[in-house]
Amino acid sequence: MKLRALSVAIMSVVAASAWTLGRAAEPIQPIKAIKPKNPAMVELGKKLYFDPRLSLSGFISCNSCHNLSMGGTDNLQTSIGHNWQQGPINAPTVLNSSMNLAQFWDGRAADLKAQAGGPIANPGEMAFTHELAVGVLNSIPAYKAEFKKVFGKDTANIDMVTDAIAAFEETLVTPDSRFDKWLKGDKKALTAQEKAGYELFKNSGCTACHYGPAVGGSSFQKMGLVKEYDTKSKMAGVAGLTGKDADRMKFKVPTLRNVEMTYPYFHDGGAWTLEEAVDIMGKLQLGRTYSKEEIAQIVAFLKTLTGKQPDFKLPILPPSTNDTPKPKPFG
Amino acid sequence: MKLRALSVAIMSVVAASAWTLGRAAEPIQPIKAIKPKNPAMVELGKKLYFDPRLSLSGFISCNSCHNLSMGGTDNLQTSIGHNWQQGPINAPTVLNSSMNLAQFWDGRAADLKAQAGGPIANPGEMAFTHELAVGVLNSIPAYKAEFKKVFGKDTANIDMVTDAIAAFEETLVTPDSRFDKWLKGDKKALTAQEKAGYELFKNSGCTACHYGPAVGGSSFQKMGLVKEYDTKSKMAGVAGLTGKDADRMKFKVPTLRNVEMTYPYFHDGGAWTLEEAVDIMGKLQLGRTYSKEEIAQIVAFLKTLTGKQPDFKLPILPPSTNDTPKPKPFG
Repeated sequence: MKLRALSVAIMSVVAASAWTLGRAAEPIQPIKAIKPKNPAMVELGKKLYFDPRLSLSGFISCNSCHNLSMGGTDNLQTSIGHNWQQGPINAPTVLNSSMNLAQFWDGRAADLKAQAGGPIANPGEMAFTHELAVGVLNSIPAYKAEFKKVFGKDTANIDMVTDAIAAFEETLVTPDSRFDKWLKGDKKALTAQEKAGYELFKNSGCTACHYGPAVGGSSFQKMGLVKEYDTKSKMAGVAGLTGKDADRMKFKVPTLRNVEMTYPYFHDGGAWTLEEAVDIMGKLQLGRTYSKEEIAQIVAFLKTLTGKQPDFKLPILPPSTNDTPKPKPFG
Repeated sequence: MKLRALSVAIMSVVAASAWTLGRAAEPIQPIKAIKPKNPAMVELGKKLYFDPRLSLSGFISCNSCHNLSMGGTDNLQTSIGHNWQQGPINAPTVLNSSMNLAQFWDGRAADLKAQAGGPIANPGEMAFTHELAVGVLNSIPAYKAEFKKVFGKDTANIDMVTDAIAAFEETLVTPDSRFDKWLKGDKKALTAQEKAGYELFKNSGCTACHYGPAVGGSSFQKMGLVKEYDTKSKMAGVAGLTGKDADRMKFKVPTLRNVEMTYPYFHDGGAWTLEEAVDIMGKLQLGRTYSKEEIAQIVAFLKTLTGKQPDFKLPILPPSTNDTPKPKPFG
């Protein structure tokens, strides 16, 4: 009996190792939970992320378009900015965005810190200036005290603001999806259809671009590799930065984590359903027409990528003071 | 020693009773914490409160203008509605609003349930219809399951939606302010200036209108009793409903709970600072010009009315499905 128990134990170890080895070769890796290096900075950044006083109107915060109740997006084709301006491009999810090789669809910001300052000063988004936003914060003693605690300085500046927002955003990872459980060895975490969808996703070439822990975010690729993408959007992608014709319609490959929550899809928000998005991707990027059943399989797999959503208390913002500059929503 | 200890104990009881009796006669009573009758309904209502899919644009939720990070208001003079329309009146705080004798500045909704349906269908606010909003919710299985659990019906309707939002809003009370601690017997909870401010607030007649646990919300009064209020706002108050000249400029007396957070003040948001608001109230309602020192005392007292702010996790909303009607932000 003892020997038999031992041999079963050995066999289990061998099987588990084989499983682990198999998984290590997968093009997608599990998302790791994050332990923030500087919790005080994260708390400050969370407040700033939710604070509409970083906008000219006093109405638009980071969370307006990257809504953490809704997959870190606004679920609109293109966003609503100051004075109800229509944005030119679909708001990408902030969830797991720390894993992107660069920020924005065209990668024009190197990292989250560089990104965070963009919308504040963009006339079509929050329509403010860095100076005015920082001025608002410095007029509020409770904010000043928090900046002092975190950065050791008496006066906040835009560097501290974007550092804090980026520190908060770095915590917005979504581990423990069903797919990650399966990757880690829980064979029952996926259904047969979902596993078939994953096999098809790998075998038909999707993982050439959608790989890594974020299932994307690691490269720039041409939208419409085999066949041109039919869109009304005027966004040219990386070419808008480089001016090179070869970069036309090159966009950052979006993460597919939580993709069930981040509709509509593509840089123009042109596809509202995952079925449509998978169909278009097959035809335009792979030159392949998936059958209805195949699409259903891939979509079933994609829905297993929904992980643990942000889990924190709604931040309470310190009130403005008599010295705080007033919001100007109506010009 | 034993006798002396007893007499000290008796004296303490007598003193405490006198204190309690004194407090019972105060025009303001402490806010009681709320234990929700139906926690599942509150959770559903919380999601709906944060869900911008109850608006035509998919961008505006209850929380947009009654922001629970900011005292249950938007801290704007008048709110921003669909297509950046300028609202006609200042958004009142949702905090402690269950204590109001009626809802809206003119009291046109009897209670929170009646109020909740208003903004959804108001073309200047969320610009949707009850039918379309309910249609969106019924297209989302996770919402349907929650409605089923709470109301026992397979299909949601607007009555359930407003019941749930009202149930959530009823939990938004703010107990344990420093003033309430003082009312309950903690003599050290207020400074000398704050106590002087409260005495002045009572003695000069403010409590004629601002009384009860919410320090207001219990009556309609004419804005500009002694002297006419100078405003660009066209809102006529209760007269807008009754057509009676006697009701012109009659508005619901707002709660002063958390007033430090609910700037700007009055139905037109005409006063940005508490100092200005107290000065105007003295002159217009009481025919009294407070000195700078008196204003500082009353303002110090008013700032002790900030209680425990909403304390819950950011709700995560169930994603739309392929059948969910699409938002129409840009007409």
